[in-house]
Amino acid sequence: MAETKGFHVAVVGATGAVGEQILKTLENRNFPIKKLTLLSSSRSAGKKVLYKGESYTLQEAKPESFEGVQIALFSAGGSVSKALAPEAVKRGAIVVDNTSAFRMDENTPLVVPEVNEEDLHQHNGIIANPNCSTIQMVVALEPIRKAFGLNKVIVSTYQAVSGSGQAAIEEMYGQTKAILNNEEFKPEVLPVKGDKKHYQIAFNAIPQIDKFVDNGYTFEEMKMINETKKIMHLPELPVAATCVRLPVATGHSESVYFEINKSGVSSEEIKGLLKEGPGIVLQDDPENQIYPMPADCVGKNDVFVGRIRNDLDEKKGFHMWVVSDNLLKGAAWNSVQIAESLVKLSIVK
Amino acid sequence: MAETKGFHVAVVGATGAVGEQILKTLENRNFPIKKLTLLSSSRSAGKKVLYKGESYTLQEAKPESFEGVQIALFSAGGSVSKALAPEAVKRGAIVVDNTSAFRMDENTPLVVPEVNEEDLHQHNGIIANPNCSTIQMVVALEPIRKAFGLNKVIVSTYQAVSGSGQAAIEEMYGQTKAILNNEEFKPEVLPVKGDKKHYQIAFNAIPQIDKFVDNGYTFEEMKMINETKKIMHLPELPVAATCVRLPVATGHSESVYFEINKSGVSSEEIKGLLKEGPGIVLQDDPENQIYPMPADCVGKNDVFVGRIRNDLDEKKGFHMWVVSDNLLKGAAWNSVQIAESLVKLSIVK
Repeated sequence: MAETKGFHVAVVGATGAVGEQILKTLENRNFPIKKLTLLSSSRSAGKKVLYKGESYTLQEAKPESFEGVQIALFSAGGSVSKALAPEAVKRGAIVVDNTSAFRMDENTPLVVPEVNEEDLHQHNGIIANPNCSTIQMVVALEPIRKAFGLNKVIVSTYQAVSGSGQAAIEEMYGQTKAILNNEEFKPEVLPVKGDKKHYQIAFNAIPQIDKFVDNGYTFEEMKMINETKKIMHLPELPVAATCVRLPVATGHSESVYFEINKSGVSSEEIKGLLKEGPGIVLQDDPENQIYPMPADCVGKNDVFVGRIRNDLDEKKGFHMWVVSDNLLKGAAWNSVQIAESLVKLSIVK
Repeated sequence: MAETKGFHVAVVGATGAVGEQILKTLENRNFPIKKLTLLSSSRSAGKKVLYKGESYTLQEAKPESFEGVQIALFSAGGSVSKALAPEAVKRGAIVVDNTSAFRMDENTPLVVPEVNEEDLHQHNGIIANPNCSTIQMVVALEPIRKAFGLNKVIVSTYQAVSGSGQAAIEEMYGQTKAILNNEEFKPEVLPVKGDKKHYQIAFNAIPQIDKFVDNGYTFEEMKMINETKKIMHLPELPVAATCVRLPVATGHSESVYFEINKSGVSSEEIKGLLKEGPGIVLQDDPENQIYPMPADCVGKNDVFVGRIRNDLDEKKGFHMWVVSDNLLKGAAWNSVQIAESLVKLSIVK
């Protein structure tokens, strides 16, 4: 990393659940910043935010806000990215976009550095940060793909409410209090803020994340399916997903079944690969009840993997349990990591 | 049903989470009882319990307690069943056992009436009630097996704490309160009362239900695998399970992937089968956000199924979401339903 050099960095959506974590992560990583521009909607403009002890005033994001910006980290929703990311690029910035706006655009690399860092060289100004639930799964699958190839993936998710933003976290805690106190409450945010109906999340599980597509899948499920194929460069890989929201604040968990391209591989070999895998912490010791859980992953950048075992019938099949902080590796840390890669690979100079 | 005739019924473990529901269910179903004997451990003996407005005193369960008993419903733990179920049988009772003690015994039928009621004729005194998570899954799979055969099942569960008994429910609510009030707490019950370590369940997900077997699976997972094969009379069916405990009081959910024996079947055909399936309520209308959720199933005997959709790659593959009250269809209702079948088939006279 060019530690001695600094960059002009803009963060768009600095007060959101992810934006906050981006600032914290830039600070923790000591990212080389020579100028920091914090942008937001007109509603949040004027608010003050601390970075390394210094107070910054949020400015309303406009096309001209990006003059001189070298790296722009967007996490203010898809419509903001669609409107302003091209404006930032036009002014010379490289955009790392945390929304779904450009993920499936064939001219936009979709990057998880542990998996396809080299795709950054193909950028046309915008780099897309994948969906949170996709990121942690591909990090866990990549060392396995490299060694043995991948034939099939079936995932069922256990996703935290913070993936739906600050309002969803507050709704979960509010409902929980109401239920404990025997008070009435009215669901208004989950499963999807903009959808027709809203359901209780406290002490419940909702099998809907994002709206439904015509084929009976949700957009979240289709994101996991399509993004996995794109990131791993396996357009033909069969991937299936069922995405479920839980009463957990932060930390997504995933029950992943996968088939490799080789018979006779032991679960110990898979564990060995994951132990050495970049960005992965292996937590797999059933005898001592060691396995990943969302409550343990909060605030950590790693992807935690455990419960690795051979399928009892399919000789090429395995099961594993993958947990990660959806706001960090699932969003803020992956974005900052992309920015670090851009510097390391001298794509931003 | 022999509505005019009554039977001498014993309930063993009448004050447990399941025992309470058995009494409630016998009452709701107006089961033909001419004499009711309520049995318990010596610890609970002497306690009083209401049935149809009448007060009953719990007696300590002993071999001689079963004199004259025609149907004995056991749900007081495996060791009690192992010790006393044979004694009850010796005295002429038919035992419906809700523990895992006899489930895989080859001389003991393992019965879900919607699936294999006719196996009751093969009983040798004891009939085993399957594991809660198995029951709801086989109810949903059976109409599909009948029509198209089954080639493969992969399930990931989302299980409620009441499956671990009253102490686990109290632990979940206690931890929840402690977290909301920023107080300390010490996990003591979950994931498994008798295991070495205990973990937070509030706002968390624990990928362990029951202890671990040597092969890396938990006993709960092996129960789902083995019991499904036995109940459905498909000893060669590939079944895989990952079982996870959630901060939900009651209501198990399951993400089920299955492959049938025929290509070209539409998800609409599968929905049609499930709509007509015994014990099943189809809740599947994505456009109107209709799908099953644990919070909606509590207190109901049915198995709720939704999110049915074709796999996007495997022509014989489908996904569905199955929810049921684990204390009712998963335990008490299935036990009472077996008792009703015993009467209907004149196995008890």
